[in-house]
Amino acid sequence: MRSRRDDSTSAGKQGELALLREIRARAARASGAGLRLGIGDDCALLRPRAGEELAITTDLSIAGRHFRLDWHPPEAVGHRTLTRGLSDLAAMGARPVAAFVSIGLPQELVRRERGRSPWIDRFFDGLLALAEAYKTPLAGGDLAESSAAVADIVLIGAVPRGKALLRSGARPGDLLYVTGSLGGAAAGLARLAELAAGRRHPRFPRIPKKFHPLLAAHLYPQPRIPQGIWLRQRGLATAALDLSDGLSTDLAHLCEESGVAAEVDAAALPISPAATLAQALNGGEDYELLFTAAPAARIPRAIAGVPVTRIGRMVRARASKPLVALVTAQGVQALEAHGWEHFL
Amino acid sequence: MRSRRDDSTSAGKQGELALLREIRARAARASGAGLRLGIGDDCALLRPRAGEELAITTDLSIAGRHFRLDWHPPEAVGHRTLTRGLSDLAAMGARPVAAFVSIGLPQELVRRERGRSPWIDRFFDGLLALAEAYKTPLAGGDLAESSAAVADIVLIGAVPRGKALLRSGARPGDLLYVTGSLGGAAAGLARLAELAAGRRHPRFPRIPKKFHPLLAAHLYPQPRIPQGIWLRQRGLATAALDLSDGLSTDLAHLCEESGVAAEVDAAALPISPAATLAQALNGGEDYELLFTAAPAARIPRAIAGVPVTRIGRMVRARASKPLVALVTAQGVQALEAHGWEHFL
Repeated sequence: MRSRRDDSTSAGKQGELALLREIRARAARASGAGLRLGIGDDCALLRPRAGEELAITTDLSIAGRHFRLDWHPPEAVGHRTLTRGLSDLAAMGARPVAAFVSIGLPQELVRRERGRSPWIDRFFDGLLALAEAYKTPLAGGDLAESSAAVADIVLIGAVPRGKALLRSGARPGDLLYVTGSLGGAAAGLARLAELAAGRRHPRFPRIPKKFHPLLAAHLYPQPRIPQGIWLRQRGLATAALDLSDGLSTDLAHLCEESGVAAEVDAAALPISPAATLAQALNGGEDYELLFTAAPAARIPRAIAGVPVTRIGRMVRARASKPLVALVTAQGVQALEAHGWEHFL
Repeated sequence: MRSRRDDSTSAGKQGELALLREIRARAARASGAGLRLGIGDDCALLRPRAGEELAITTDLSIAGRHFRLDWHPPEAVGHRTLTRGLSDLAAMGARPVAAFVSIGLPQELVRRERGRSPWIDRFFDGLLALAEAYKTPLAGGDLAESSAAVADIVLIGAVPRGKALLRSGARPGDLLYVTGSLGGAAAGLARLAELAAGRRHPRFPRIPKKFHPLLAAHLYPQPRIPQGIWLRQRGLATAALDLSDGLSTDLAHLCEESGVAAEVDAAALPISPAATLAQALNGGEDYELLFTAAPAARIPRAIAGVPVTRIGRMVRARASKPLVALVTAQGVQALEAHGWEHFL
């Protein structure tokens, strides 16, 4: 974790240096197996286990597109930033080894008041709590001033050689499954927008406790790490990805990479109690796993405490048929990709 | 390499998708050993060699702080973005395995005119040319719209277990060396500023050929990858880092991590012909290697074609003495850390 201009002697810069020291100390407490050298040198050093390969993913979160400073509590921004990366590891069946986060922030989000920055300290509260829950050490990153608030998360995971769950293995005849429920994050975002419309926009919002259950799927989504590892260990999934952009968009990606088409049974979808069918089909950021398995594979009703639902099947791709079809009582229609729209 | 909102059907978004496909195709051509799966799945997969550990670094570059859209040619921004990461690998003695780049850009820098974006295509021209020169495949990344132009570079390198060059190994009595020359990047930046002051600021500048020699050290700095690998293979360096923030700042970091002090001989410094002493001491972004070695170690005058100069020695740290001292004909003075200042 380095800060440019760290030579300056202004009070603000001294505060920034103190902040970096604290992040470094907090991150050091969450050290993991496989991490040999964390924050403080030119690079972090990781020591992979014999027979493992590494999975690497990066995701950029930008204020105004992936979160809003006037809507999202800083803890939720930190949590969601890390969830995006962890969820990509879950989709490969990888175990987390280390995280890195590069942050660009306007001065006012870094400046400290009475020993604590009202934004970045709370951002790290959320990020590090989730990192601890999934035993993911924060091994480095970068911090710089920026007119737009941005956070790039990098996750390194490990998986036995040749065993990673890919998007490209689905075959016609495979059945299609999803973990958890769909649309809850989109429904939560809609509630958050209503909530924000009804009040003066605070600089760094806090959400009253009574709203937490309605908003949790949006503010604090859980990456399906144990479920991804379970599927990879059993060798049951022929293809997998995580639902970050919405079922209609992400399923099309899986079909494209596998060279197959899909049929989704509308009646089978595990729609979140708070959500509409449209939110379940097109809402993004649920971070559930979507996977395929051979018809003979015995997929349980729940994996590591999270329900699993069969929602359709893979079929041969044909030029005359839609890539993804939605089957309802009214018949079969094309399911166009209408994934998650950002704030701007 | 993924783009959010990639479901939109607007012309601009179609252009963005075409751009991503092209970046993916261009990146695929530069595949390397060790990279099993690049852009296109949830994660990239790397297969480390037995007995190696991985070095990982991230560096955030932001318009207005690390580069200026109205001063720097896009090719130079791409080159410099990658150099920052490669130089961190060089400082550990690591060989590059893969790079990832997450980019946030205003729409106007992505929009295509006659099949080519005037900014991001040229950014990748610069980045991929350097990647090819150092056999570094671009294995993934992210692209999103942002009001501020930002690029986060992630480099993964490999080094035999326990052999990485660290900042923490310098001992009193060790001699201090630097590769190449110092201050050239700061002098080049000063010339670039003069050049920019003398003309109407173009949107996406091109630099006339006659200015190239004066500006190369700033616009196209070379990471010292072969030199770092040479030092690591010979086991001669006791500590090393790369000069990104300037000698006075970076040498202080090396002293702190090693628990020693340093004396620099002003007369010995390999000052770039275009630069002043102050630029050599405090100018950043030279990306030369600074390293220490035992007095008995035989350090050659050049490593892989780049000169090496002995510029001082490490001494015991004492509360009564400066951490870094500059020795001149007039005597010994403290060398305060006055590293590189950004544009804002």
